[in-house]
Amino acid sequence: MRRYSLGFDFGTESARALLLDVDTVEIVATTAYTYPHGVIDRTLPGSGNPLPPDWALQDPSDWLEAMEKTAREVMRQSKIAPESVIGIGVDFTACTIMPTTDDGTPLCYLDTYREEIHAWPKLWKHHAAWSQCERINRIAAARNEPWLQRYGGAICSEWVMPKALQMLEESPSVYLAAGRIIEGGDWIVWQLTGALVRNSCGAGYKATWNKKHGYPSAEFLSALHPDLSDLYAHKMAGPIMVPGTRAGALNAKWSRRLGLPCGISIASAAIDAHVAVLGCRLAKPATMFMIMGTSTCHMLISEREVLVPGISGVVEDGIVPGLFGYEAGQAAVGDAFAWFVKNHIPKEYADEAERSGKSIHDLMSAKSSLLRPGQSGLLALDWWNGNRSIPADASLSGMLIGYTLTTRPEDVYRAIIESTAFGARIIIEKFIQSGVPVSEIMAGGGLTKNQFVMQVYADVIGRDIKVTTEQHASAMGAAILGAIAAGKEKGGYASHAEAVVFMTTPVQQIYHPNPGNVEIYNRLYAEYKRLTGYFGHGENDVMKLLRRLRD
Amino acid sequence: MRRYSLGFDFGTESARALLLDVDTVEIVATTAYTYPHGVIDRTLPGSGNPLPPDWALQDPSDWLEAMEKTAREVMRQSKIAPESVIGIGVDFTACTIMPTTDDGTPLCYLDTYREEIHAWPKLWKHHAAWSQCERINRIAAARNEPWLQRYGGAICSEWVMPKALQMLEESPSVYLAAGRIIEGGDWIVWQLTGALVRNSCGAGYKATWNKKHGYPSAEFLSALHPDLSDLYAHKMAGPIMVPGTRAGALNAKWSRRLGLPCGISIASAAIDAHVAVLGCRLAKPATMFMIMGTSTCHMLISEREVLVPGISGVVEDGIVPGLFGYEAGQAAVGDAFAWFVKNHIPKEYADEAERSGKSIHDLMSAKSSLLRPGQSGLLALDWWNGNRSIPADASLSGMLIGYTLTTRPEDVYRAIIESTAFGARIIIEKFIQSGVPVSEIMAGGGLTKNQFVMQVYADVIGRDIKVTTEQHASAMGAAILGAIAAGKEKGGYASHAEAVVFMTTPVQQIYHPNPGNVEIYNRLYAEYKRLTGYFGHGENDVMKLLRRLRD
Repeated sequence: MRRYSLGFDFGTESARALLLDVDTVEIVATTAYTYPHGVIDRTLPGSGNPLPPDWALQDPSDWLEAMEKTAREVMRQSKIAPESVIGIGVDFTACTIMPTTDDGTPLCYLDTYREEIHAWPKLWKHHAAWSQCERINRIAAARNEPWLQRYGGAICSEWVMPKALQMLEESPSVYLAAGRIIEGGDWIVWQLTGALVRNSCGAGYKATWNKKHGYPSAEFLSALHPDLSDLYAHKMAGPIMVPGTRAGALNAKWSRRLGLPCGISIASAAIDAHVAVLGCRLAKPATMFMIMGTSTCHMLISEREVLVPGISGVVEDGIVPGLFGYEAGQAAVGDAFAWFVKNHIPKEYADEAERSGKSIHDLMSAKSSLLRPGQSGLLALDWWNGNRSIPADASLSGMLIGYTLTTRPEDVYRAIIESTAFGARIIIEKFIQSGVPVSEIMAGGGLTKNQFVMQVYADVIGRDIKVTTEQHASAMGAAILGAIAAGKEKGGYASHAEAVVFMTTPVQQIYHPNPGNVEIYNRLYAEYKRLTGYFGHGENDVMKLLRRLRD
Repeated sequence: MRRYSLGFDFGTESARALLLDVDTVEIVATTAYTYPHGVIDRTLPGSGNPLPPDWALQDPSDWLEAMEKTAREVMRQSKIAPESVIGIGVDFTACTIMPTTDDGTPLCYLDTYREEIHAWPKLWKHHAAWSQCERINRIAAARNEPWLQRYGGAICSEWVMPKALQMLEESPSVYLAAGRIIEGGDWIVWQLTGALVRNSCGAGYKATWNKKHGYPSAEFLSALHPDLSDLYAHKMAGPIMVPGTRAGALNAKWSRRLGLPCGISIASAAIDAHVAVLGCRLAKPATMFMIMGTSTCHMLISEREVLVPGISGVVEDGIVPGLFGYEAGQAAVGDAFAWFVKNHIPKEYADEAERSGKSIHDLMSAKSSLLRPGQSGLLALDWWNGNRSIPADASLSGMLIGYTLTTRPEDVYRAIIESTAFGARIIIEKFIQSGVPVSEIMAGGGLTKNQFVMQVYADVIGRDIKVTTEQHASAMGAAILGAIAAGKEKGGYASHAEAVVFMTTPVQQIYHPNPGNVEIYNRLYAEYKRLTGYFGHGENDVMKLLRRLRD
């Protein structure tokens, strides 16, 4: 009998299910479901309560609905027997956390808290905790907290501590009512199994947990706020398992909802970006994997631990057991392109796209690709959503310089794309300079479909970039986790290493840098770095002032 | 019998005629005519030869056609007798120069040169001579040229020397073939009278001429380029007269074309911005007059000469005889707003404007006016067309900082408007700091119709701003020049002083600053000044590098 594993991938706008044939490593079926409430960033569903700037929430019901609908759909499509599914794996955006009761009920489900914006899940890209984050970093640096350097010298406003502190400060009643604060991925596993288990990937990268040293101390938490001291000891409590560890078995309630037998092995969760490394069978040292979507995650595995300033973090067991997983990131990539297309595309361009049957992005890429490097006359800092890595400061913002009266939309579009490539180059160079080798660069994610974007990246970075064929890397990784959790005896995989070794890395296309373009981009990159130094490292804090005046 | 004077105002996109009742100072009729070729900035008419970036040309036939059509139209409307017109005055954009033969035939009219881009009139906003201008300023500073400090320490790429040097370097044959190089306004007077006369306004502000010291020396011109030495002695030769001086009489050819009697007094020309001071009856010391249109000119009259760094210039007899006229400017104001509206307004906004029957500018102003100062989170440097005053460097470019994923079009529109107000404030403060008093601020020009824009200016500058009722200040000024040229005996005015003294200054509305807004803008202005220092005064020359890479 063939064995299958089911992976659930919970993204920003939608969730996907993927059914994997464990033996052939083939995708049997996959489908996605768009969240009815999408990203909640203007008003709260139901009450219509307005959200302040930089807020981004989700509705947990969207996740559950998506899980049920996609699972039933892949089973329907594949026509396989439910009994042949041996494992279920889950990946999720992170840090996407919410407060729940002790039994895991989201506070936003309760009438008392439903109209309270802090009771809802804060999506990874919720950036309203930046002032809390600045304070955390300042106090941690002053106290010389030992964990700080594992996170490049500064944690990010997207993570657990800033988000929890914001909740405590702005809505103490919600914070006090929260029996648990939990990542979306762990909450899904809790729903499926009835057991509260946390994963070392989320805990390590987003909750500053370390395999040897655990969480930051209660003493440090007290220094931030007296009432925060129980955050890790109580609200974040729970066993921590490497992703793919068997967290439990599918319970009766979710057996009914998914139409799958009770007892199927449920793997402990993982972060979507990190599990994509496994999904692309790249879980080996010195391969930089850029997952390029709304934002970009930069994943790198190494046999040794180096403290790299300005990166997101280094976590032992963070991606695969026994190795050090490095993460860096860019907070807005596809999101920045989408921002431009939503806000700054004139009617005549929109009409032209419609006439020619092209998407706006395809039209703009086509127009922008006709420009040679430098021809736009523009240079941008790609911090539309703050800066996640190098210098790692969420309170920074985007900049465009070089406007003239002849600047056209395609000039700006290209400059924004180039700026994200400069941002990626800064990260790659920092790893190498710090002694973490990068022998090859792989890319995956939705943006890799855009050949123009990928060629700009190769030209800016000045190295070959290999694009994986794997279109659903995270969902694939989640399914692999499910097969690992099922284990060899049940027909799954014995270990992460086995899962990676017997599969080949699927490469679709290699982008080679054009030497002439590389030369011009080297000059522009020098200017980009200089402006990064000026605006990003404290020489001129105008971006922070603008944010303060705005809020 | 009533006496009338006819003013012609040659602008960027159109020309206007205005018929003035000399005794009542009332406008009898006025009409405008849009140039068929408009601003030529992409391809040359006829041949379709492409223009490089930053080029801006006009077609002299457009001017002549406009003069004929508008003169006949105001005569038709007014039904006055042609014999009752005693004078004609002309104002023109400047520096708008072209090469002609010795008899005044534009070189672009000749088959030999028609396809040659340098044979056409270079409009004031032609900015492709910026590298020549940098060289002129560098060499003049090194030689300690005495005239340089009258122009704030640097001349502008829009002026005669850079444009002529660009012509010489890029198209020596055109330069050599040019018997004359002449401002559009002087050329029009030449057409009307048959006599080549130059005006002290154009010569002083755009050709670095001085009443006491004349033009820069042939020795200096030789230091720029050996073949440039005859520029002032030959190609720019001709008597220089204060605007309003009688340059000659209407000749037979143009008597026929205009349908007006031969012999009418023709006044020597003036620059459109400068004559507007007269047109608003503001030709008195310490009144700052901002003429706000596609660009803004800042005019100020004083009894004494002070050398102010970074302004456009100070010229004795430049505006009225016997006083010192100061000019400063902002190269893109309405042009920057128009750039935004043309390039960055999304379809849904365009559709909303159409549905509500509003212009895009009205819609955007309405949306932007709902924001409080600072709420956009953005700050801009308003140098979309380079910087004309303070620091006075045409190779600078526009900048926007503070973008986030929630930045909307109205945020950017407001930030661009605010940036032009910051630019105006820098100029006003510089005059005062330098010892040229500014006791009141008047504004005129098309942009003053926008109440939102004017309130932002009052709030940013922190002073009352009075808006003149005079909607056609330049054409009005030109008509006043015509009446001065006609003189007292013919029923005109005896002098500029008389023209100003017996008329009242028409004020339509006063904008008072809102103290709360002033406070926030003071903080943003401090940041604007700091960025001006960083990008505009040589600390970081990235704008210049971007321009070089583009070209």
